[in-house]
Amino acid sequence: MLPVTDMRLQGRKIGFAGLGNMGAPMARHLHNAGAVVHVWNRSEAPAKTAEEFGMKRVEQPAGLTGPIGSGIYCVNLTHTVVVEEVVFGKGGIFKEGIPAGSLVIDLGTTGVSGTRDFAQRMYEAGAGWVDAPVSGGQVGAEAANLTIMAGGRDSDILKATPLLEVIGEKITHMGEAGSGQVTKLANQLIVAQTIDAVAQALRLAELAGVDSAKVRDALRGGFAESRILDLHGERMVNRDFAPGGRSTYQLKDVRMICELAAEVGMDSPTLQNCLHQWVKFVEEKGFGELDHSGLFRLYEC
Amino acid sequence: MLPVTDMRLQGRKIGFAGLGNMGAPMARHLHNAGAVVHVWNRSEAPAKTAEEFGMKRVEQPAGLTGPIGSGIYCVNLTHTVVVEEVVFGKGGIFKEGIPAGSLVIDLGTTGVSGTRDFAQRMYEAGAGWVDAPVSGGQVGAEAANLTIMAGGRDSDILKATPLLEVIGEKITHMGEAGSGQVTKLANQLIVAQTIDAVAQALRLAELAGVDSAKVRDALRGGFAESRILDLHGERMVNRDFAPGGRSTYQLKDVRMICELAAEVGMDSPTLQNCLHQWVKFVEEKGFGELDHSGLFRLYEC
Repeated sequence: MLPVTDMRLQGRKIGFAGLGNMGAPMARHLHNAGAVVHVWNRSEAPAKTAEEFGMKRVEQPAGLTGPIGSGIYCVNLTHTVVVEEVVFGKGGIFKEGIPAGSLVIDLGTTGVSGTRDFAQRMYEAGAGWVDAPVSGGQVGAEAANLTIMAGGRDSDILKATPLLEVIGEKITHMGEAGSGQVTKLANQLIVAQTIDAVAQALRLAELAGVDSAKVRDALRGGFAESRILDLHGERMVNRDFAPGGRSTYQLKDVRMICELAAEVGMDSPTLQNCLHQWVKFVEEKGFGELDHSGLFRLYEC
Repeated sequence: MLPVTDMRLQGRKIGFAGLGNMGAPMARHLHNAGAVVHVWNRSEAPAKTAEEFGMKRVEQPAGLTGPIGSGIYCVNLTHTVVVEEVVFGKGGIFKEGIPAGSLVIDLGTTGVSGTRDFAQRMYEAGAGWVDAPVSGGQVGAEAANLTIMAGGRDSDILKATPLLEVIGEKITHMGEAGSGQVTKLANQLIVAQTIDAVAQALRLAELAGVDSAKVRDALRGGFAESRILDLHGERMVNRDFAPGGRSTYQLKDVRMICELAAEVGMDSPTLQNCLHQWVKFVEEKGFGELDHSGLFRLYEC
């Protein structure tokens, strides 16, 4: 169900930085639930659209601190370095210092060690950090039924919960700051490799003279069943690779997975191969703008 | 529902070679449905058990031809070479020649080109071959709710259907002989790689300080959802690797997948890596008797 007015968010001041495919509907849901949402986005168009919906627009990330003060700042950005720049950088949200009592909720997929570092900086200023990456894609963001994997101190999670409940349906508190990101990377590892497996299975069947649509149907409900076989398998059968989830983002996530694996000493040939396949697909073949199910194309050539 | 008397099988003579974990309950279901089942198994104990259930036991595969004649022969054996030996070999079922009008139903996972060759030999004798590998494991065999992927000529499939309906719940006719095996290998490719993905995702989370049981719960229902995450993920969380599906069989299937891929020109680094991981697990580490979810152990060392 789409969120309606939520008493807990009535008049609550929320800053929102990053109005991409995911961030824009999230900010809108918070606004519709009754929050006073101030938005910033690097490019103007999405911020103007938000303004038309009744949100308030600021010109720079630092412009959020005035209205929001010790309130809640949501960020939904594509790279760890961008999160650092927008939150802590020279023109960033906390350019003039971190207001005690404030809380950042990072809804994007951000590196684990970066996240732990950001949380530490907030704690030292008497503020909080919650990493709350989501799964469910743009469809889930629009429908406000995202799965959210949250990391942070109990008190910060408690503060974040009313907001997260507006944009998501299944929210799990995984542990301390960073553990939401760890869980998201575990999710992405499974997604990246399962897409590769389904792509090869369907293509192998085709090359061996069996109809891939029929194979997908036959496999549904058995041990090979997965959301990937269902949704992405159908895209492969139909050769429909319009995004959806862009392959450039999948590659970005696979890189973060490999970084984390190296940090904890779990480097493996499977992960190296996974990275290699996505690099080949995105960077060598130039298919980064296709949906990640488009990895199927690797096995057509 | 377990099969009860099926009019179509009343008094029907069926030969059954191979009473392993899967074959034994299948033969029993056919017997319970009213067929007159003659069994052969290399080791004596399972054949004697079948005899106690009321089936007829023969001492050699060739002993089946007398009672069955131009009827139906089911085989459920572990390797392509064993299928060849038991069906066409010197002491095999058709030692004295292939009775015209007879039909072999191969319920095991057998190589694709071998299957095509076997079917051809049967056709030349005016007989038939149906490859009908199953998915669902021993649990599915006991419950008679297996998923069956069948390949063969329409007339042969028609003859096989009453039997297949007794042991399985979802039966798909994939195409000509061999296409059932192609589909099973596609299934196994997805299973082998998804197990590897789930194992690494859960282990990576643990090493990064997050509880793997919590990660599995958080991921359920999202894009990473699969039967493997559900069933085998739980085994990994609980370190419960009693088979289930033995890893030696998984490795055997991965080898057949790689052979088929090589034949159709779809060799890939992912498949090579997949083979490498299962060889390492089964042959180098000696974990072949563990359930295939035990691949998790590779990432614990």
